Amino acid sequence: MTVLTSWSTPAVPVDAALFRQVFRRHAAGVAVVTTDAGRGPAGVTVTSLASLSADPPLLSFSISATASSWPHLRDAGTAVVHLVGAERAELAHTFATSGIDRFAAPTRWRRLPTGEPVLDGAAAWLRVAIEHRHPAGGSHLVIGRVMEAELAERHAPLLYHDGGYHAL
Amino acid sequence: MTVLTSWSTPAVPVDAALFRQVFRRHAAGVAVVTTDAGRGPAGVTVTSLASLSADPPLLSFSISATASSWPHLRDAGTAVVHLVGAERAELAHTFATSGIDRFAAPTRWRRLPTGEPVLDGAAAWLRVAIEHRHPAGGSHLVIGRVMEAELAERHAPLLYHDGGYHAL
Repeated sequence: MTVLTSWSTPAVPVDAALFRQVFRRHAAGVAVVTTDAGRGPAGVTVTSLASLSADPPLLSFSISATASSWPHLRDAGTAVVHLVGAERAELAHTFATSGIDRFAAPTRWRRLPTGEPVLDGAAAWLRVAIEHRHPAGGSHLVIGRVMEAELAERHAPLLYHDGGYHAL
Repeated sequence: MTVLTSWSTPAVPVDAALFRQVFRRHAAGVAVVTTDAGRGPAGVTVTSLASLSADPPLLSFSISATASSWPHLRDAGTAVVHLVGAERAELAHTFATSGIDRFAAPTRWRRLPTGEPVLDGAAAWLRVAIEHRHPAGGSHLVIGRVMEAELAERHAPLLYHDGGYHAL
């Protein structure tokens, strides 16, 4: 084992390159978060979704402050968190691609009675009330309270690891 | 697709059983967080680790308020987050087992010069200054600023899905 970086004081940070190198060894489930703050549907792929509490039902995820969807998530009161299955990697790709209309064909979606966009083909989705947004470095940590959930298509989860998508 | 639960007002939560059923479809990387608040080493397995920001280097994880390690993480200024590889599932098991001394043999560990316990056999570890603790339902969301990191053993990540551990 080799210590690559060791700092004598907490004030000196590990650099971004080493941080990214370490997290390439981590694996994460893949989710797509959609919302509508009154300016049309917005959505983004995230690899930071976590169950936070079952009772009350709370989840957390983070989103980059530079993501095109952040201003929408900042302003919206609710969002829909979709779990993406291994056979739906194209959903994750689409909602991680800049400069396209992510809701145009071949994306299939509808609106809930409450107005939020829901994507076809997710393994499950949860509608959340956004309870808390915490700015942290270049991102925002978001806590959502689950109000409604649907189990949809049954398949293995999609994973993100070492810069690519994988099936379990 | 069948809507299992649908509520007309945001005030009425999805129940804990449905929430857990949805998150059994999610997959997550596995980490063990250790710390020492001056009362000896403490540690816990978490499946909520996420990269939050590369510059500055920040990560987040959550821990149940009823976890034996929570009082230690509440009081400590620093912690060590270990990424667990597929060949080290016993680490994840040990640090998720109640009523045992998690640091007793066969667990192998040492102390950093700064005092925190570090486990042998992790794929990588990151020493963090705990910057923020946010109570949310039955858990606490923790944000750590990475001060030091080591890439150690190279192997595929360990995953948690549907109540069990898996290799990618």
